[in-house]
Amino acid sequence: MIHIAVLGYGTVGSGVVEVINRNRDSINKKAGKEINIKYVLDLRDFPGDPVEKILTHDIEDILNDEEVRIVIEVMGGIEPAYTYVKRALLSGKSVVTSNKELVAKHGTELLKIARERDINFLFEASVGGGIPLIRPLNQSLTADEIYEITGILNGTTNYILTKMTEEGKSFDEVLKRAQEKGYAERDPRADVEGHDACRKIAILSSLAFGMEVNYEDIYTEGITKITEKDILYAEKIKHSIKLLATSKKIDHRVFARVSPVLISNDHPLAMVKGVFNAVLVKGNVVGDVMFYGKGAGKFPTASAVVADVVDAVKHLNRNIVFSWSTEKMDLMELKDVPVRYFVRIKYEDFENAKNEVEQVFGTKEIIVLENLKDEFAFISNEETEGILQEKIDILKKEKSIKGIENIIRVEY
Amino acid sequence: MIHIAVLGYGTVGSGVVEVINRNRDSINKKAGKEINIKYVLDLRDFPGDPVEKILTHDIEDILNDEEVRIVIEVMGGIEPAYTYVKRALLSGKSVVTSNKELVAKHGTELLKIARERDINFLFEASVGGGIPLIRPLNQSLTADEIYEITGILNGTTNYILTKMTEEGKSFDEVLKRAQEKGYAERDPRADVEGHDACRKIAILSSLAFGMEVNYEDIYTEGITKITEKDILYAEKIKHSIKLLATSKKIDHRVFARVSPVLISNDHPLAMVKGVFNAVLVKGNVVGDVMFYGKGAGKFPTASAVVADVVDAVKHLNRNIVFSWSTEKMDLMELKDVPVRYFVRIKYEDFENAKNEVEQVFGTKEIIVLENLKDEFAFISNEETEGILQEKIDILKKEKSIKGIENIIRVEY
Repeated sequence: MIHIAVLGYGTVGSGVVEVINRNRDSINKKAGKEINIKYVLDLRDFPGDPVEKILTHDIEDILNDEEVRIVIEVMGGIEPAYTYVKRALLSGKSVVTSNKELVAKHGTELLKIARERDINFLFEASVGGGIPLIRPLNQSLTADEIYEITGILNGTTNYILTKMTEEGKSFDEVLKRAQEKGYAERDPRADVEGHDACRKIAILSSLAFGMEVNYEDIYTEGITKITEKDILYAEKIKHSIKLLATSKKIDHRVFARVSPVLISNDHPLAMVKGVFNAVLVKGNVVGDVMFYGKGAGKFPTASAVVADVVDAVKHLNRNIVFSWSTEKMDLMELKDVPVRYFVRIKYEDFENAKNEVEQVFGTKEIIVLENLKDEFAFISNEETEGILQEKIDILKKEKSIKGIENIIRVEY
Repeated sequence: MIHIAVLGYGTVGSGVVEVINRNRDSINKKAGKEINIKYVLDLRDFPGDPVEKILTHDIEDILNDEEVRIVIEVMGGIEPAYTYVKRALLSGKSVVTSNKELVAKHGTELLKIARERDINFLFEASVGGGIPLIRPLNQSLTADEIYEITGILNGTTNYILTKMTEEGKSFDEVLKRAQEKGYAERDPRADVEGHDACRKIAILSSLAFGMEVNYEDIYTEGITKITEKDILYAEKIKHSIKLLATSKKIDHRVFARVSPVLISNDHPLAMVKGVFNAVLVKGNVVGDVMFYGKGAGKFPTASAVVADVVDAVKHLNRNIVFSWSTEKMDLMELKDVPVRYFVRIKYEDFENAKNEVEQVFGTKEIIVLENLKDEFAFISNEETEGILQEKIDILKKEKSIKGIENIIRVEY
């Protein structure tokens, strides 16, 4: 029998306990041993709840109990999670976590401790909820050199963009409804500003490229500036606007970015709608593979946590090797990364504005929406962002152009 | 250093050799040991080819060489692959294969031999080419009880159906072009009759449900009877026709089936176009997850084979446990499985035919295509196939109905 402890009895923690009980027989069979939840740690009391008898308020009960071999951290946030997890690992207990902030900030150190002690630090649930991502990247795509990972890693923003598209409503309207339905937090910034997706792509990049990618180095732009008009233009040219987290090798360097992107409706990520997540991985042998599913929620997340527990039981005194090393990745600056811009322009004078765009950007094709009389849009050729920004600055000074309404990146 | 041998130097075999050479450093790093291809077995000679020096025509060279720890079987077909693989396992060598016929027919026995000797029989490449499927099912979704697997498992038929839909052409026309382009074999039966998909769903079912599913027990219907008209009806009601391989738990029993199916365009499998494959897995905890990518081809298949080799190196004297047991699965008979039928009818007399459909099937809604004057279609309510067939037999006897043009299953 393997004794485990669960830190945090919130949404995910209670899901984990429920799943281990519900699928007990099949889980124990796959783990090859009986799994017993010996402790649940939470500051709160849960009178009448089945966990009442195993509830503790004191982390020392768990850390000092040598019978506990695996600790599940599902509290979220950096502290006290970091301190607890580090102490658990240092005392020889494997740790399974769903905490993306913790993994993005301290993953390198915690993996190193686990490696040195021949135990495990596993974090499948920290990215993409129940979608198998970390393990396939680490153990299935080993023949490949990965050169790109691009994903829809945040369900809240994908829900908002989907609803804006399907119902023609504004960001604020849809956000409000999403909050009422519980799909968005009361303080939605971590989602809508892209911070959540940023941490997740940092984790995936560290794994895929074998070095520590600091999430603070990743250019991150949210969806708050996306308007109904942008979506109408996108629809006109059979594109969708998605918040994409991407990490890509160019020659021997890597760039990473979180931002709204226009993608063709033929792109496999374009069909990912509502709260679903998906990650497209490109390898130099396999080509494109995509993983799709619910990226959050009590049970999808619990599914990934418990699968990690099964793996931890199967590898009790044997470290599962991750390529994520302690070496730091020096990311490319965005200004050196080639991309296309979708640019929306308000004009004083249509013909002159059109000519200016052609002269500066070398593109004749503009996109006009019938109902919008004082603006048009165009898509630039591919150039580095540095050059594109210089060209935007030139446009801004032209008299025929009243202003730049929005700029969104375009990927093919 | 780990010595390996490759049986078969055809498309996949040459891909495997090329990948091991191309990504040598990263592969050896992930395997933790240097991998050396000591032999390539083929009946043919390859003068001037880099493998010339390690080529052998005699399997005994490989089987009798104790240095060879891993054998890669990429010959295809049952014999001599089965004999070679079995002898390799019996002599203590792990085996990696891409051979779906072999795995579907002899997987149970070969897994048992590997289990008894603490070595491995791995077959990620036998289903879905480079898409990670077998390992995620076996090692990632362990918290779940899987209750359904449904996939587009054959790229040739998906390409044909996609082209029929996009270009409005007949099955025969598209097949001919696919053959010219090398997307379909000269003898296309294994693909278009569904036999290839049948073997693959048998393998996935055996894994997901932990028992041997005999592919010969699986009801299998191909796409040769799908016409342009069927596709026009499907488009009218915003559905797509796909060849789906499915395996599903109903109460405590399992049914499996390969057949064309109408699915709504909102269904995640509807967006899988051309030669791509995808597998939707439903678990009682995680909900729906989907895996997507190229299901065949030299390099996607080689990617999966080499990833299995890396895993075999990491588990040299340690069996990776599969839930696929020697117990035989007794599949449900199709007549007991509930489904909906899309039925196309040619009528003598529209009003009477419509009334008959309403009386027999209890459905008032029919689908009429403007250009087709002597037929209509309808979708039945959900009932067992046995009952639906009885109702079809009643319709056939009605005078107002000239004949049943086609019947296609519908899933939601």
